[in-house]
Amino acid sequence: MAKPPVLTPQAEDFPRWYQDVQNKAELADNGPVRGTMVIRPYGYSIWERMQAEVDARIKVAGAQNAYFPLFIPESYLKREADHVEGFSPELAVVTVAGGKELDEPIVVRPTSETVIGEYMAKWIQSYRDLPLLLNQWANVVRWELRPRLWLRTTEFLWQEGHTAHATFEDARAYAEQIHREVYADFMENVLAMPVIVGRKTVKERFAGAINTLTCEAMMGDGKALQMGTSHELGQNFAKAFDIQYLDASGTQQHAWTTSWGVSTRMVGGLIMAHGDDRGLRLPPRLAPIQVVVMAVRDDADVLARCAALADELRAAGLRVHLDDKVEVSAGRRATDWELKGVPVRLELGPRDLADGVVTLVDRISGEKGPVALAGIAVATAAALDASQQALYDGAAARLAAATVDVSTLEEAREASLTGFARVPWSVIGADGEAQLATSAVSIRCLVRADGSLPLSDDEPDLIAVTARSY
Amino acid sequence: MAKPPVLTPQAEDFPRWYQDVQNKAELADNGPVRGTMVIRPYGYSIWERMQAEVDARIKVAGAQNAYFPLFIPESYLKREADHVEGFSPELAVVTVAGGKELDEPIVVRPTSETVIGEYMAKWIQSYRDLPLLLNQWANVVRWELRPRLWLRTTEFLWQEGHTAHATFEDARAYAEQIHREVYADFMENVLAMPVIVGRKTVKERFAGAINTLTCEAMMGDGKALQMGTSHELGQNFAKAFDIQYLDASGTQQHAWTTSWGVSTRMVGGLIMAHGDDRGLRLPPRLAPIQVVVMAVRDDADVLARCAALADELRAAGLRVHLDDKVEVSAGRRATDWELKGVPVRLELGPRDLADGVVTLVDRISGEKGPVALAGIAVATAAALDASQQALYDGAAARLAAATVDVSTLEEAREASLTGFARVPWSVIGADGEAQLATSAVSIRCLVRADGSLPLSDDEPDLIAVTARSY
Repeated sequence: MAKPPVLTPQAEDFPRWYQDVQNKAELADNGPVRGTMVIRPYGYSIWERMQAEVDARIKVAGAQNAYFPLFIPESYLKREADHVEGFSPELAVVTVAGGKELDEPIVVRPTSETVIGEYMAKWIQSYRDLPLLLNQWANVVRWELRPRLWLRTTEFLWQEGHTAHATFEDARAYAEQIHREVYADFMENVLAMPVIVGRKTVKERFAGAINTLTCEAMMGDGKALQMGTSHELGQNFAKAFDIQYLDASGTQQHAWTTSWGVSTRMVGGLIMAHGDDRGLRLPPRLAPIQVVVMAVRDDADVLARCAALADELRAAGLRVHLDDKVEVSAGRRATDWELKGVPVRLELGPRDLADGVVTLVDRISGEKGPVALAGIAVATAAALDASQQALYDGAAARLAAATVDVSTLEEAREASLTGFARVPWSVIGADGEAQLATSAVSIRCLVRADGSLPLSDDEPDLIAVTARSY
Repeated sequence: MAKPPVLTPQAEDFPRWYQDVQNKAELADNGPVRGTMVIRPYGYSIWERMQAEVDARIKVAGAQNAYFPLFIPESYLKREADHVEGFSPELAVVTVAGGKELDEPIVVRPTSETVIGEYMAKWIQSYRDLPLLLNQWANVVRWELRPRLWLRTTEFLWQEGHTAHATFEDARAYAEQIHREVYADFMENVLAMPVIVGRKTVKERFAGAINTLTCEAMMGDGKALQMGTSHELGQNFAKAFDIQYLDASGTQQHAWTTSWGVSTRMVGGLIMAHGDDRGLRLPPRLAPIQVVVMAVRDDADVLARCAALADELRAAGLRVHLDDKVEVSAGRRATDWELKGVPVRLELGPRDLADGVVTLVDRISGEKGPVALAGIAVATAAALDASQQALYDGAAARLAAATVDVSTLEEAREASLTGFARVPWSVIGADGEAQLATSAVSIRCLVRADGSLPLSDDEPDLIAVTARSY
């Protein structure tokens, strides 16, 4: 008799599968306050790897890390009209502190444009101080009515970049640089997730921005997930917070600012983009554990060889976990490592040892077979490289197969039930966008016909990418 | 005529010197909400290096990173009587969220024993689940009436470790292991700060602990700073949150828990322990920039050689900054690098280049002289090693010189005006402790005569270390 599956099959109930994975792979749990999340060690190790990769790219792009306060005076939020309108419904407000009612309520940051704007204004004097390129890793709070682990949580972890520039062009170029060289590069080359880089419609823009760029990815159920955004803020915040500089000719000018962020939401995206009915499938370049060396039996020679093998692989620069919990059955442990999505499992038992081989089980391709112990580090590294590529290719093929070119609003609505539709923006427009919303279909972004980034919403021949979304 | 000093001299006004350093070295600024802090890029880069070093040691000690919510239901705080009494006056409370008054107020975490205790209770079933070793990097909030940058801020960044064990002995041993192998080791070997490892008196214990271990350091003005603490929590939180496990004989037992933390306060300690009238002095093992390569003149050969030199030093594994801002005077830039405490400055001008040398300026010893460009990486690394040791030796000598053995409460009070006093605990006791407090003198910790850790406050012949403190 077949064992019951550990997870609800995706085809049966995708949201239930997602929740099952959280529990069984020990990724995250609901927090005690509505919409908050407890990130368990394995889930956090995935986020830590994301942080390391994104942080390195941000530093290459020239931004410096800093830290601004969690608490923002309520009055700051009100200085930029669109911004306060956008965020007011989501705010958590501290009214009592140190045992006393506060004179002015304090907002728990939903994002930090306002407080960082205040300090940019102090630090920037002349054009020589520009560009000012800042980033912070922080928690933010946005009250969530329909929370879902990683995707929409009342508190989430993220990085938020904030920059000030002398010109519109420089600000635009930097927002785009971050979007391509940090975000899209990380998502495609580390997360193995193909993303559509586009421009948000006015309706979907960040509150206070003049333009929002987005990376949109397709999940296993054909829905879209917004994985990261970069905003051109124009001079809106510069005017609200008086961020001025003396230009080379001695005239005071308002700066042009940008902001950009990716969050723990990416972990949810990674799970839903690559996961299958057996659990997570982690891309090797990201995986906190790339290789698990599993002793199949409680045998002194096997255990010693496994420990040596783990050391050999670590010395070759791989992230390795030694599983010597031989008191638990090998089958049960194998199932757990598949749930956790470890790309390569090397199983070693007495017979393998006698034959001078190890059984390599590839989580991505599902293949399993003996590999000689001599030269195992090279073979394992090759298997990891192949898996990284296979995962990307699979996701790209799914994205291509589930994306259709259509020419009417009705067709776009229909196609969005199972994937993405590409439809001329001219046949949709703001009215069509509102109409699609009644069917829970949204315009994920606008792109040019050749896939490149439009400079404005008014360019002719733009394509709207529509989908249901998380 | 001598230039006016950039900083208020320490001997004239130490607190003013401290504030001046914050501004001139661009470390931190006051936030808009009372007691909060803006950490500027250079200050944050110091904290990032601290995080990396402490995090690596925590992982070696076997704890795993996780993340628990910022928001804690008010009712959780109330479950452990001492804990709520200790933290109530310092809480920030969210009463409005998502546009509505909340049914139950939410506390912004002042520390996470309560919420982590709740999840430990869910995750721990049997003795096989123990020890459970968790850590998180997070921000916490404690309302401050007398804030000071880094040392006492309403919001601060820290790591908080939380562990559960099967026995009293195992919990005690782990708290001590963290204290010595993570905290004291990091402070002495990376921060170059000698610390006194001791046991807090009942009065100074963490709210809810049965024992608190502390690392106490001496600042440049002879005052003490508590740099980090590890707490044995006994079964107090295990009982309040029902953290139970089935032991090997099948009986339900309450676990024994610990918690331990170090924070951004260490940055303040580092500044005050090593700084001098010219600014910061950073220990090479910590310094975000270990070497600044400074082009003295706007000369193409000099600039090219400086860039090559920076690359050469980076290739040798050093953290290097290339200062090619030749439009600013060399003197002004040298002053700035001294303010920022960069351990080694290599100045290169046309004459140096002609002579095949570079001028090495050592921030710690103050020495300055030519060093051959051939073999410069080895010479620089040697200078950094020597500086690390010199900084530690200097701090240790100051600590020894400003610590006196005394035999009465009056002598302890007197000696604490300028440094530390070691006085028999038996002549002080809880009454003497309260009396000293009226002169702003506190017992920093209790140690045995040989400097080792006492197992209880009741051991005979204990020594109380007294001082004024931050």
